[in-house]
Amino acid sequence: MQFADRLAAAVKKTGSITCVGLDPRKAQLPRPLQDSVTEDTNKQWAAAYQTFCYEIIDVVKELVPCVKPQAAFFEALGPDGMVALGNVIRYAEQAGLLVITDGKRNDIGSTATAYADAYLGTSSPWGSDSLTVSPYLGRDSLEPFAEMCDQRDGGIFVLVKTSNPGGGLFQDRETEGQTLYQSVADLVRELNTTRLGECGYGPVGAVVGATYPEQLGELRQAMPTSWILIPGFGAQGGAAEDVLIGLDDKGLGAIVNNSRNLIFAHAREEYRERFSEMQWQDAVSEATRAMNQQLSR
Amino acid sequence: MQFADRLAAAVKKTGSITCVGLDPRKAQLPRPLQDSVTEDTNKQWAAAYQTFCYEIIDVVKELVPCVKPQAAFFEALGPDGMVALGNVIRYAEQAGLLVITDGKRNDIGSTATAYADAYLGTSSPWGSDSLTVSPYLGRDSLEPFAEMCDQRDGGIFVLVKTSNPGGGLFQDRETEGQTLYQSVADLVRELNTTRLGECGYGPVGAVVGATYPEQLGELRQAMPTSWILIPGFGAQGGAAEDVLIGLDDKGLGAIVNNSRNLIFAHAREEYRERFSEMQWQDAVSEATRAMNQQLSR
Repeated sequence: MQFADRLAAAVKKTGSITCVGLDPRKAQLPRPLQDSVTEDTNKQWAAAYQTFCYEIIDVVKELVPCVKPQAAFFEALGPDGMVALGNVIRYAEQAGLLVITDGKRNDIGSTATAYADAYLGTSSPWGSDSLTVSPYLGRDSLEPFAEMCDQRDGGIFVLVKTSNPGGGLFQDRETEGQTLYQSVADLVRELNTTRLGECGYGPVGAVVGATYPEQLGELRQAMPTSWILIPGFGAQGGAAEDVLIGLDDKGLGAIVNNSRNLIFAHAREEYRERFSEMQWQDAVSEATRAMNQQLSR
Repeated sequence: MQFADRLAAAVKKTGSITCVGLDPRKAQLPRPLQDSVTEDTNKQWAAAYQTFCYEIIDVVKELVPCVKPQAAFFEALGPDGMVALGNVIRYAEQAGLLVITDGKRNDIGSTATAYADAYLGTSSPWGSDSLTVSPYLGRDSLEPFAEMCDQRDGGIFVLVKTSNPGGGLFQDRETEGQTLYQSVADLVRELNTTRLGECGYGPVGAVVGATYPEQLGELRQAMPTSWILIPGFGAQGGAAEDVLIGLDDKGLGAIVNNSRNLIFAHAREEYRERFSEMQWQDAVSEATRAMNQQLSR
């Protein structure tokens, strides 16, 4: 089944458009996991990250359609971290979750094909369904991904309008009345046209930050067949009313990522009083359910 | 010692501006390495890639200042591939080569810091000196890299004008008389101003393709303190006269990458007649010396 259709099915099944971002960070890991690290080695931290993510997956697997591991935090632990990343992706897949690897990869020609081969679809050696991809290198860097999506039922999410404060420096540059992000959106839409699944969406999705709600509405119109991955909700400042504009009238077409506010919920004011750090998993569960609730309007 | 100064010292010591691209590909590996793969598993291919790269490093370590492993080909083998990548980077470092990890990574804020932590400088868990970086996310995605360069004597090479035919789609878009790649070059130059090493260059370098010689000349002027990594020489069509314009009058400021034409030299017409596939290492040596010669004018 095509990636877009699998994502639609997962959203319908769970009744949720929440994507849980798996962004393990040493300093914020709950106490029991910090304590499991007896020697400050990459190997031990990688084991702690893996356990942390496994336990989150156990908690959220019935609650959400997908998870998004952030490759950077695993890569920062060297090869040991990447082995843990592979284990986490497979564990999530086996739990029935779709996995978006957040790698913001890309390169030219046959090297782009190698990244697509790595991270997309049903025979990814990582076990990943989809990947976030950077567009700076142009159309011929995105086509190999789209072709691999066809072959392996994979998906990609192309960076269009990112959630960071400085994202506009290049993305908002206007040429003949059209911003760079609008040009990227045009390419995204075009790459999807011949690839639509039964749900009406195709494998070429887009990343649009919750922190720019006006542009999100505009981009929802500009890319009517693209799933939009919306980061920046919660900790970065995006609110529910800012992201719901990304949905179509069937409640499909967008998934909303939240990392810190879910996976480190035990440290949030509102949960710290109710859950001890030893019950961090319960805080993850509560926070995920609360986010589903917020987005269910 | 700062990355820029270490690179200058390595160029002077070897008398070479050649960067050997480590881009292992299954179908093109020399026969003895193909034969070492008895079962078609990622583990066995990763072992073959590792041996292939080790042997190349043995051959070129006295001939060139640096090597550039392409992360994508290792990632395409899943976690086994990344373990091999880590081994290859460390082996190159131990051989006295500088290592540019070609990952074209980036992300926002603290995630960019995680990538910088992963791949830059003297305590990289991969053992890497420097990393190629994509600029689409803007200034606040590049600053964390520049700061990590300061802390750990690392370097980055920001994609400015890439070598692929379609690179211009976004990179050449003009806004108020300035192309996108020129705007990125301005940011690169600015990030370097407070960070110059003794050689007059800073840690924030740029990627400019040999396939656009006119723009290379223009960008040499626009980024006078940036090392330029020039891909696209050889197999992609760039010639010696196209790349030498990237150098300053002391013969510093640019390194020229070549992957296929060096590491798979045994398969080139001119070497196939002189070396059997069992002597592929000799072909690598000859081709590397020939490239040094071509660029020594």
